[in-house]
Amino acid sequence: MTRAMRKNDFPVSQVRRYLEPGPIVLVSSKWQGKTNIMTLGWHTILEFSPSLVGLMISGGNHSFDMIRSSRECVINLPTTAMTDTVVKIGNTTGAEIDKFVEFGLTADVAQEVAAPMICECHASFECRLHEDALVDRYNFFIFEVVKAHVAGSPKHPETLHYTGDGVFMVSGKIISRRSLFKPEMLG
Amino acid sequence: MTRAMRKNDFPVSQVRRYLEPGPIVLVSSKWQGKTNIMTLGWHTILEFSPSLVGLMISGGNHSFDMIRSSRECVINLPTTAMTDTVVKIGNTTGAEIDKFVEFGLTADVAQEVAAPMICECHASFECRLHEDALVDRYNFFIFEVVKAHVAGSPKHPETLHYTGDGVFMVSGKIISRRSLFKPEMLG
Repeated sequence: MTRAMRKNDFPVSQVRRYLEPGPIVLVSSKWQGKTNIMTLGWHTILEFSPSLVGLMISGGNHSFDMIRSSRECVINLPTTAMTDTVVKIGNTTGAEIDKFVEFGLTADVAQEVAAPMICECHASFECRLHEDALVDRYNFFIFEVVKAHVAGSPKHPETLHYTGDGVFMVSGKIISRRSLFKPEMLG
Repeated sequence: MTRAMRKNDFPVSQVRRYLEPGPIVLVSSKWQGKTNIMTLGWHTILEFSPSLVGLMISGGNHSFDMIRSSRECVINLPTTAMTDTVVKIGNTTGAEIDKFVEFGLTADVAQEVAAPMICECHASFECRLHEDALVDRYNFFIFEVVKAHVAGSPKHPETLHYTGDGVFMVSGKIISRRSLFKPEMLG
């Protein structure tokens, strides 16, 4: 089991630092008293402020109706320490099991949304539905991150990046090219 | 300078293998006889078949009008061997320079679109505009990958994943969890 991570408030306009690299995320939701978690790799940052993130949530997922009805979710960032849990969450359905119980995960109360945060993840981003124009045709939801929580360390956790076919790439090593940027382009 | 990569045809329904991990990509375009290249990190896979990819192309980019007008582009995948070039392409504008010439890149003729492919990249995905419903409000384009070209090796090239602030994470090391998947879930 992975330990719970203590997290600090983080600026919502800067969540790209964790999501733009394209990691697998765990999306948690709550509807009519029940919670669920899904594994998701199809997402993109869309805007800094408001802090917008696009998620493609396939209609076959038990989470789809829960998120569509509640108009909320939490995007949680797992690290490689949670690899097996990430896979198991992706390969089971919330229609049959309670994933928090089944996988020994701790639900934490979010501040702005009813969906629970996953304590064991490195970061949790509370999201409210911002735009549903492409949900019917493409299952594409645009959420606004309304509150962000990030663990203080490590600064660049090892994250999982799915290639399909049961294989993940791992990010964590970094390359800095700050010297090639003009000062006004850096945060 | 990076060497040109010889590429093979690749199934368009499987481009998620290269794009789902969330790498920085180089988007090339052509309009009214001029070509351009931009660096882009805000993208997501949306569907296997048709092979759909969503790109957020900020309106401030010189490429925006070229891509909007031509309704085409090529998504090229650079590796860490091209790190400095990736940064320089992102920090200059096609309004002032010819990026193929300036950065010593080789334009290759695509099969299905007029936009050029970048020879030095590991993969090139020819794209045609599929949906522009969210372009006005969110600069979000949905493209169909109509032809894919991928270098035969390495199987998992080192790719760049941008965190903002001049810092990239590097993916390349892999973790396989094929044993945790049911056979019908694997390709």
